Parts: sequence; C-alpha cells; structure tokens
Amino acid sequence: MGAIRYELIKKCKQTGARLGRVYTPHGSFETPAFMPVGTQGTVKGMSPDELKEIGAEIILSNTYHLYMRPGHDIIREAGGLHSFMNWDRPILTDSGGFQVFSLSDLRDITEEGVTFKSHIDGSRHFFTPEKAIEIQNSLGSDIIMAFDECVPYPCDYDYVKKSIERTTRWARRCKEAHKNTEKQALFGIVQGSTYRDLRIRSAYEMLELDFPGYAVGGLSVGEPAEEMYEMLECTVPLLPEDRPRYLMGVGSPDYLIEGAIRGIDMFDCVLPTRIGRNGTVLTSRGRIIVRDAAYARDYSSLDPECDCYACRNFTRAYIRHLLKAREILGLRLCTLHNLKFLLDLMKKVRQAIIDDKLGDFRKEFFSSFGYKSI
Amino acid sequence: MGAIRYELIKKCKQTGARLGRVYTPHGSFETPAFMPVGTQGTVKGMSPDELKEIGAEIILSNTYHLYMRPGHDIIREAGGLHSFMNWDRPILTDSGGFQVFSLSDLRDITEEGVTFKSHIDGSRHFFTPEKAIEIQNSLGSDIIMAFDECVPYPCDYDYVKKSIERTTRWARRCKEAHKNTEKQALFGIVQGSTYRDLRIRSAYEMLELDFPGYAVGGLSVGEPAEEMYEMLECTVPLLPEDRPRYLMGVGSPDYLIEGAIRGIDMFDCVLPTRIGRNGTVLTSRGRIIVRDAAYARDYSSLDPECDCYACRNFTRAYIRHLLKAREILGLRLCTLHNLKFLLDLMKKVRQAIIDDKLGDFRKEFFSSFGYKSI
Repeated sequence: MGAIRYELIKKCKQTGARLGRVYTPHGSFETPAFMPVGTQGTVKGMSPDELKEIGAEIILSNTYHLYMRPGHDIIREAGGLHSFMNWDRPILTDSGGFQVFSLSDLRDITEEGVTFKSHIDGSRHFFTPEKAIEIQNSLGSDIIMAFDECVPYPCDYDYVKKSIERTTRWARRCKEAHKNTEKQALFGIVQGSTYRDLRIRSAYEMLELDFPGYAVGGLSVGEPAEEMYEMLECTVPLLPEDRPRYLMGVGSPDYLIEGAIRGIDMFDCVLPTRIGRNGTVLTSRGRIIVRDAAYARDYSSLDPECDCYACRNFTRAYIRHLLKAREILGLRLCTLHNLKFLLDLMKKVRQAIIDDKLGDFRKEFFSSFGYKSI
Repeated sequence: MGAIRYELIKKCKQTGARLGRVYTPHGSFETPAFMPVGTQGTVKGMSPDELKEIGAEIILSNTYHLYMRPGHDIIREAGGLHSFMNWDRPILTDSGGFQVFSLSDLRDITEEGVTFKSHIDGSRHFFTPEKAIEIQNSLGSDIIMAFDECVPYPCDYDYVKKSIERTTRWARRCKEAHKNTEKQALFGIVQGSTYRDLRIRSAYEMLELDFPGYAVGGLSVGEPAEEMYEMLECTVPLLPEDRPRYLMGVGSPDYLIEGAIRGIDMFDCVLPTRIGRNGTVLTSRGRIIVRDAAYARDYSSLDPECDCYACRNFTRAYIRHLLKAREILGLRLCTLHNLKFLLDLMKKVRQAIIDDKLGDFRKEFFSSFGYKSI
C-alpha cells in the first residue's frame, strides 16, 4: 500500500479523457482536477474557507519558497504544512527544481545538485535530490515531486539529452531518499523539452522507477501549443492507466481542456490568481480586463453565468473602482472569481466525460470563450 | 419624523455612560458603537460578509474619497452607496471637510467654500457646504455630516474663533441644502480646538440649528488625552439626551472606553485596519507586533480570548510568515482580528453599562491591556 490510490472511473468515448478519483491521506479529489497554487503556503488573496467554498479539493505549494521562508523546520514544528496553513485537504508540493532554475540568477549544476542564490537575500544554497525530499518530508504534503531539471525553451538537443539522463539519476536518488512512502506519494517527472524521442526515453526511464504517479514537466514554457500537445500525445499513452498523470504549470482554459483530452488528470497554474490580481477575469464569454474604463458604469456582474461570491454580490463598476483605488477587496474578488471559473470548468469537463461528450463541450466552449480549438 | 431615531435604553449608574439604539432606514445599531472605516467604499481588506460576521452594525465611508474616485454620479447611478458596495446596514459618511483640510496641499478657504487640489491627480476642486450635501445625497448614506473646518492642533485662539463662526454658518447652509431629510439624517459638528469657551459656544450654536444628531470633531489630532477628555466633559452634557453623539476619528481602546464614560455613543477610526495591515494586533493582553521575530515559532493564536476566524484557525507563526512574505491573507487576518477586538470591546462596554459596572470594567481592562486609566 502506498500513500495514494488512483481510481479510473470512466473514459470519455468521444475523446478518451479520463474521469477518476485520487485517494490521499487527507481525503480524495476528483480528476481531471485543477490545483490552485499557494506558493508561500497561501493561495494569494484567499482564505482556506474561501477555497473550500469554491470547490478546491487539492492545492499546490512550492518547496523552494517555503524552504526560503519561513523555513521547513518551522513548518515541521507546526505539525506540517496542512496544520501550518490550516488546509486539511490534499496538498501537492513541487520539488523546488523549477524555481531553482527559473528564479535564481547564479546557479551551478553538478551531478550532486544545484548551487543557487536566494531570490530574497542573495544567500547561497545547495539543493540535491535528497535535500528536496527531506524538505518535502518535513512539509508533509500528500504528493511530493522528484527533483528535476526544467530546461528553458528552446534548448539544444544534446543539452536536453544530458539533462534527462541526470533527471533520471536524480529521480532514483529521490526515491531512495524518500522516507515517508505510506503518507506521501512521490511522483516522477517526464522531461525532454520538445524532442519526441527524448520525451519517450524519459517516460520509459521514469516508468522503470515505478512511481505512484507521473508528471509531465517542462511544457508551457514558451513552445507553441501544438508542440505541447504533440509531447503529451507521445508520452501520456506510455504511462500506466492506474496512476494519476499531472501536467505541471498549465492552467489556461484551452490547455486544461486539451490536456484532459490527452489523458491528463491534474493541472496547476498561477494564471487565475496572477491575472486576477491585475484585474483580468475569465468569463464564459472570454477574458475581460475589468480595470478598463469601459466598465466604469457597467452595473452587471463579472460573469452572468457564475454564482461565486463576487458575481452574486458586486458589479463590474464596483470591482473596477476597487482595482483603480488599489483596494484589496478588488483583487480578492477577481482572484476568487477566476479560481471558481477554472474549478467550474473542470467540473464541466468531468460531466462531459460522464456524458461522453467532451469533444462537443470543447467546441462549444471555444466558440463562446473566444479561443480557437485545434 | 426624521430619518433616524435614538432610543436611550439606560445609563450606567457607576459612570453615566449611555446604552442606546439608533434606528435608521437601513436597520438599527446598538450604542456605544464603533464604526469600521471604509474610506473608498470598502473597509480595507474586508468583505461585507466578513464585517457582518464580526458584528459590524454600521460603517463609515468618506465623501471626499468617493467624490474623487469613482465619483458620486457613478455611485448614484448604481443605486447609492449601500447598493454599490453591497452593504445593506447603516452607513455614515463624513462631509469631506477633514480630508479637504488634511490631504490637500494647496487649499484656499473663503466664506463660500474651499478650493483644493486632488491628492490623486492634482486637479483643482471647489467644495462648499451645498456641494458636500449634494454629494452625500447622491451617496444615500443614512447619516451625513455637515461641512466643517477641522483645525490642526495646536491652533491660535483667534483663528479657531473665526473658524467655528464660519463652521456654524456652513452648518446652516448644509441644513438648508439637505433635500432628503426623511432618508438621511444630517449631524452638526461641534468644533473649537481645545478651547473650552469656543467648544461651548460651538455646541450652543449647533444646538440652535436643531440637528438629529451631534458630532464632536477636531479631537484626537495631537492634543494630550486629558485635553480631549476635558473638551468632552464641557460639551457633551450640553447635547440633548434624545440625540446620538458621535466622537469623530477616535478609536483606540482607551479613548473608546473614556469616550463612552463621557456620554459618547458613536466612534470611528482607521486605527484597527491601519495597524492591522502593518502587522500590529490588539489583544486582551495588549498590542503585539506579529511581524517581530519573537513570534516566528509561536504556535498560539493572536489572542487566546478571541474567537474570530483568524484566532480560531491560525497561529502567530503562520500570520507572521504571511506578513513577512507580504501575503494578502496576513493583513486580512490582522485587520479582521483588530476590528473584531474593538467590536467585542464595545459589546463588553454595553454589557458593563447594563450591569452598572463600566468603571470596574475600565479598571480591569486597562490593567490587563497595559494602558493607564486616568
């Protein structure tokens, strides 16, 4: 018995998308699932109660950030991340790999690990696969991630080849270092940039290590959508049917639907919270920038089809005023609405899988939302 | 019949403090009452639901700020401030006088009104008593305030004398301009700096104008607490028993208790929200600066005697982390707690009046909170 179990409930006959449920030590969540991102142990602007109210069943937090501040020792002392942040549902933490490679200027990669400078105070730190697991063991998250290298796009073929080989060796070390397999499930991460053969090779190497779940990493980093979909199409079918598959860092509405159609079960992205804080909201008719002067006298709700707290109680004119006046409630309402929009979208995707109509849903959604389907 | 009615329920036999209830077109509130401040049509960081949950019965908003942004025409179009900000309980708006005199660099006072520069874009504006009432009529607040001059402390006797004479003339013009007396109650404001004779004279002049409620303005602007208390002691007894008395801009715990003892029914202050955003919280054992390193590993709640959402669910260590990481939830929780602390304090004050023990309560409170009673 491991820490988690994936139950495949059914597949959409129209698209092959999977409806499932993942059981963890802190309860279960339905898939395909969108995970709101709580980088620093809080989903920016939201309280845990609000996250529950809008239907979040699992959230993600970032190992790199929590290691830097407040430090994983403080979180361990508090009884783990669930207790520290008062979130009793499942939590997934990343390994810190992505942040080490993207946030730190100075970094030095060796076989042993990565030396990097803190984005907060410039202090030097050394991350190894063992260190990334030790920190995540302290955090006590239900799903933890192997320490990997996430290469930029585009990236030289030979570099990516060396990188995935090292990422495999690091994944093995993570597996060996992981001491808490009954309470925390360690996922392996398939890398390989946009090279089909390297993605396939990385997938097979991860499969050999027999993880309770698999992630596809290093996508949505600047490559065209078609290349992302191609990478999913060549790797996801190799992954075992009885384990969850997680597409890392992806969360725009089109990617969520296209990812689910390609067999992905889990997604995370800062998009809804980040654009919400800047006053952009996702609606059933497409994105709107509520800060725009066009909404100064618009006394309708953000989205007529939404029943979130923001849409039930406030007008675009009021929310625009709050944003212009830099009032906190403005970004709270936009963040809440955007998260609800994506969580509701996943609910609709799951219903469409039940109805064997995800292909039809995709077409309808893209025509009303204003995205092109591919 | 006017817009509001004050019911005097009882007086504390130990102190003379008044327990009462004010009835308005948007429901009633118990007095002595603390009004959270929603300067720009939102109590910073809070949602209307949260304000209700912590027991706020009336809030204050600022005419100057709403006139500047979004503009009172937009709020009128939205159906008034209650509808615009989704707050269905009583609202009091100030007249803009205080902000015109304190926020604007360039200002030019004549008998007709005040010319000043916007704190947002430097544009020039002209406020008159009639304009202040017109704006407040557009906002639709239950209690509106006369346009007055709030002089700085200290201030030359002769200037204050001229100023209160003008403030009386302006109050008369406000009363004449007020078109919505059945829905909005206009309060007169007693000024006079720290000069007993001028305070008394201002009070008598306001009484002659027969307002449905009276405010004491221009205190807590830098003068010693003793002088503030002296001013209350010489003016409040002159005010009619059957009208509410409002001490403007005052909200530290000691001032609330001392004000109630001197016959004040209503208070407002940005203190709990402002210090909350900076990570200072009011507790039953005194103020604590949660940002301090001392609380990094303090896994107790902000205040063991508080049952607010912040205290029920989070530790000082977590809230400190949020504040250090500049996370919005941190200032939300501190703001919520501080407001609850003051609203609870007023509840205790009202109970002490019922029990005829407000003097005992004052002594106890000051010894545990760490303030000196005078």
